[in-house]
Amino acid sequence: MRIYLAGPDVFLPDAAARGAALKGVCARHGLVGVFPLDPLAEAEPAGWAALPEWQRIALRNEAHIRTAAALIANLTPFRGPSADVGTVFEIGFARALGLPVFGWTATRADFAARTRSFLGDAARHGRDGAWRDGEGLAVEAFGCAENLMIDGAIVASGGALEAAELPPDRRWTDLATFERCVARAAAQLTRR
Amino acid sequence: MRIYLAGPDVFLPDAAARGAALKGVCARHGLVGVFPLDPLAEAEPAGWAALPEWQRIALRNEAHIRTAAALIANLTPFRGPSADVGTVFEIGFARALGLPVFGWTATRADFAARTRSFLGDAARHGRDGAWRDGEGLAVEAFGCAENLMIDGAIVASGGALEAAELPPDRRWTDLATFERCVARAAAQLTRR
Repeated sequence: MRIYLAGPDVFLPDAAARGAALKGVCARHGLVGVFPLDPLAEAEPAGWAALPEWQRIALRNEAHIRTAAALIANLTPFRGPSADVGTVFEIGFARALGLPVFGWTATRADFAARTRSFLGDAARHGRDGAWRDGEGLAVEAFGCAENLMIDGAIVASGGALEAAELPPDRRWTDLATFERCVARAAAQLTRR
Repeated sequence: MRIYLAGPDVFLPDAAARGAALKGVCARHGLVGVFPLDPLAEAEPAGWAALPEWQRIALRNEAHIRTAAALIANLTPFRGPSADVGTVFEIGFARALGLPVFGWTATRADFAARTRSFLGDAARHGRDGAWRDGEGLAVEAFGCAENLMIDGAIVASGGALEAAELPPDRRWTDLATFERCVARAAAQLTRR
């Protein structure tokens, strides 16, 4: 069963080795991990050859997700309080296709706490009880791990979220939290 | 023709008024703007009543997109170098459904420039020519306006992007850039 492995891991200096490690964990649980950098299983459409590299990467990732049975996303905060937007795009894409969406993240702080921490002194507690940023935009505070569209997709799709509080130097190398997520996905997908 | 208006505008203190203004622009171009805070056109499924508010919001937004002919996203950077992740989720969702995706943004700086600016002194120019953050993760640099999944979806879906360099105090109130995007969407959707 093919599982698309969304995440900013593709930006790591040793992205290929990281992808191999993630796929190894999947294999131990009877799943076939598909890393975004993998070539397509089928031949690429002839028309893609003329496209710039970034467009080919986007189309390849979309094609990977279309042939996957589920998606596991690395939701570890990336350059701000939220997950990598490429990863989040792929979660939305998978959700619309009806795939179960699983996520894991290297922090246990919820989305509101992370956002207020990111805003620092700019965060203001308004008269209506809501926290707002320096421009007046509200801080979403539903106790979710991420923006509610992401938590909503995980719940509504029958997926699950695994969170652990990892030290900074293990955020991009840890496999244990990912493995717990894979184990839950394997159990859930086998049950279906 | 119903157009879903994705964006962090829902977090503004005057979100309802902002939604009305955006919908007014759509109406001038013969389109029906659907703001995320709008109630569903049809009755909500009975089962939703027992769900927490955040889950109902997520399901409602997904339902809005499923009944839309296209999506227009406010891609203005939000608490970091990228767009709001709720908005990006919805772009991925719309893309998987085959909807044309349009975007507008209050900056002309490309994604790589915004990311390097966000990283500041932590940005490092590696021996391989790539810029990396303090943890070694590469800065995506394809000349795109956003992560390549977003630019890729706009291009592949037949959409368009409108960018303007707006001063900070007009980032969340401007309607002119949005209106240029709506005009392009109206022309494109009528032509189909």
